[in-house]
Amino acid sequence: MATNKAWTLASRPAGWVTEDNFKLVESEAPRPQEGEVLVKGEWLSLDPYMRGRMNDVKSYVPAVQIGQVMVGEVAGEVLESKHPGFRPGDKVCAPLGWQLYGCAKGAELTKVDASRAPLSYYLGVLGMPGKTAYFGLNEIGRPKAGETVVVSAASGAVGSVVGQLAKIAGCRAVGIAGGKAKCDYVVKELGFDACVDYKAGNLHRDLKEACAKGVDVYFENVGGEMLDTLLRLMNPFSRIVVCGMIAEYNLTEPYAHKNLRAVLVNRIKMQGMIVFDWRERYPEAVQALAGYLAAGRLKYRESVLQGIERAPQGLIALLKGRNFGKQLVKLG
Amino acid sequence: MATNKAWTLASRPAGWVTEDNFKLVESEAPRPQEGEVLVKGEWLSLDPYMRGRMNDVKSYVPAVQIGQVMVGEVAGEVLESKHPGFRPGDKVCAPLGWQLYGCAKGAELTKVDASRAPLSYYLGVLGMPGKTAYFGLNEIGRPKAGETVVVSAASGAVGSVVGQLAKIAGCRAVGIAGGKAKCDYVVKELGFDACVDYKAGNLHRDLKEACAKGVDVYFENVGGEMLDTLLRLMNPFSRIVVCGMIAEYNLTEPYAHKNLRAVLVNRIKMQGMIVFDWRERYPEAVQALAGYLAAGRLKYRESVLQGIERAPQGLIALLKGRNFGKQLVKLG
Repeated sequence: MATNKAWTLASRPAGWVTEDNFKLVESEAPRPQEGEVLVKGEWLSLDPYMRGRMNDVKSYVPAVQIGQVMVGEVAGEVLESKHPGFRPGDKVCAPLGWQLYGCAKGAELTKVDASRAPLSYYLGVLGMPGKTAYFGLNEIGRPKAGETVVVSAASGAVGSVVGQLAKIAGCRAVGIAGGKAKCDYVVKELGFDACVDYKAGNLHRDLKEACAKGVDVYFENVGGEMLDTLLRLMNPFSRIVVCGMIAEYNLTEPYAHKNLRAVLVNRIKMQGMIVFDWRERYPEAVQALAGYLAAGRLKYRESVLQGIERAPQGLIALLKGRNFGKQLVKLG
Repeated sequence: MATNKAWTLASRPAGWVTEDNFKLVESEAPRPQEGEVLVKGEWLSLDPYMRGRMNDVKSYVPAVQIGQVMVGEVAGEVLESKHPGFRPGDKVCAPLGWQLYGCAKGAELTKVDASRAPLSYYLGVLGMPGKTAYFGLNEIGRPKAGETVVVSAASGAVGSVVGQLAKIAGCRAVGIAGGKAKCDYVVKELGFDACVDYKAGNLHRDLKEACAKGVDVYFENVGGEMLDTLLRLMNPFSRIVVCGMIAEYNLTEPYAHKNLRAVLVNRIKMQGMIVFDWRERYPEAVQALAGYLAAGRLKYRESVLQGIERAPQGLIALLKGRNFGKQLVKLG
C-alpha cells in the first residue's frame, strides 16, 4: 500500500499566507469506491484562486475548512478504476487537491490526450488558465482588430495566453508585469507589442505612453490600485474582464477604488468571470488553444517546484509575484 | 423684439452648487440664421447631469464654459423658421439651455405630438429620462420575469419609470428613496413592491429584507455608498446599470468603493450608459412609453417651479434630493 502525503489547512491566514497555515499529513493511499477512480498525481497546479479559498467567506465555491486537504487541480495517471469510463494508465486531470493520491468520481475527471501536448500543459495553457483566457477575452472582452488590449500579470499562466490571443485577433497587446525580466519575456518571447513594469513606479504614465489610443479591453488579474489606474485610461465603450484580484486577496481591509465614475462617463462594461461558467464549451477552447500551440503561435512557460513538500512555498511565491510562468509542483 | 433672459455659468462650484455659480443675463431674443429655427421655450428640464457639466473635466460631452448659457433641454413652440421641416406653431424639444428664447439647427430639434401627451411630458416620461429608463433597463439590465429589480432615486424622473417598466416585465420592483412621503408614493402610486428609505439609516439591512432573493438588476442613479451597499446584495450573474452617480457629483474627493470584489465573485456585469447611445432607436422608446401611459400602466409626477428666475434653486434642490418627481421650470 502506497503512502499518501497531503497538505491540509492548519489555520486561516490574516493577510499574507505563511507556511504555518498548512500542515503535511501522511496516511495510506485511499481505495476507490464504486464509480470512483484512484489517481496517482504527477503534477499539482498552484493558482491565485487558492488564496480566496483559505478565507472563511462566501464566494463562488465553499471555503476550505480547517483540517481539510487544500483544493487544487492535479494531472496524473489512473491506478485503479471502478468506473467504466476509465482504465489504469489513462492520463487525467482532477480536482484532487494538494496530495499524491486521490479518488474522484468519474464525472469529476477529464481524460486528456498526453500525446498531443505534455501532461502538465493540461493544467496550464490547455487547462483552467488557458480556458480562462480564451473565454474571458473572447466572450467578455470581445476584442476587435486594431483595438488595444491590456492584461495584468502578463507573464502568468492566464495573462500570457490573453495577450497572445489578442495578437492573433489583430489587436495591439500591452502587458503589465513586475520587473525587467518578466517584461522582456512578455515582449521578446510572447510577442506582445509592449509591457509596462509596474515596479518601476510610473504605472499610469508608462501605460498611457504604451497605449497611445487608450485601452479598449482590460483583462484584470490583479485588482486594487491597478484596476483604479486602468479605469483612468479606458476608452468609451471599452470592456474590463474581471478575472482575478490577486492584489486584494491578502488585504485585511478591502482596497478603496476611486475611479468608478469612469464606468459611467465612458460607458465601460466591467464584468466578473469564472471559467466554470463555460464548462460545456471547454472542448472548443482546448481545440483552439492546442491548434495555436501546434502552429507555434502560442508560447508557454512553466515554473516547476520538485516535490509536494514545496507546495506552500510555491503558493506564497505566486501570491507575491515571485514566480515566472505557470506555477506547478512535480509530485512524482 | 422680445427680451431674452438666460442663466450663464458665473463660476465653477467647489463641492455643492450655490446660486452664486449662476448669473442671469438679459438680451434681445436672437433671430434664426438660414437652416435655423427660433423657439420660445415653455418648459425647461432640470436634470442631475447638469452638475457634471459645471465642472471643467473631461466627460462624455464638453463642460459649460464660464459665461456660457447653462445647458438644458427645453420644450416650446416654433416662433420663426428658416428650416423647411418646421413651421411657426410647431411644438418641439431642443437643447436650448436655461433661457426663454433660443435658435437651433433643424437637426437639433425634435418635433413632438402635444396632442398625445402634455408638452412637458416630452422632457420627462417621454423624453430623456423615460428613454434612459427604457434603454438602460432593457438593454443592459435585461430583466427576466420573476427577478428582483432595485432602482435608486426611485421617485425621480428616471427611477419611477425603471420600476414601473420592471413591474410590466413581471419582476419584483424595489425602490430606494429619501423619506416616507417619497417611499409611500413609490409603493402606493407607482405600484413598486417595496421602497426602502435610505434616510432611515439601515440601508443594507432594510434592502436585504426587501430583497429576500437578492438583487438581479440594480439601476444606479446615485453611486457612492449606495452602490457599495448594493454590491453586497447582488446575485450571481446580476447586472448593474450605471446611469448616474448624483451622490458623487458634488464630492471634492471621489468616493472610495470597497466592495468591487463582488464583481468577480458573483460575475456581476456593471455597465455605464448614456441615452444618446440609442439615439436612432428613440422613436421605439417613445412609442412604447406613450402606449403604457395611455393604458394607465405608467404613472408620472412633475415638480414645477414658476419662472426662469428659479432655475438655479431648482437644480440645487434636485441635487440635494429635495424635489419630488420630474423637476421642471415653467418658462412662460
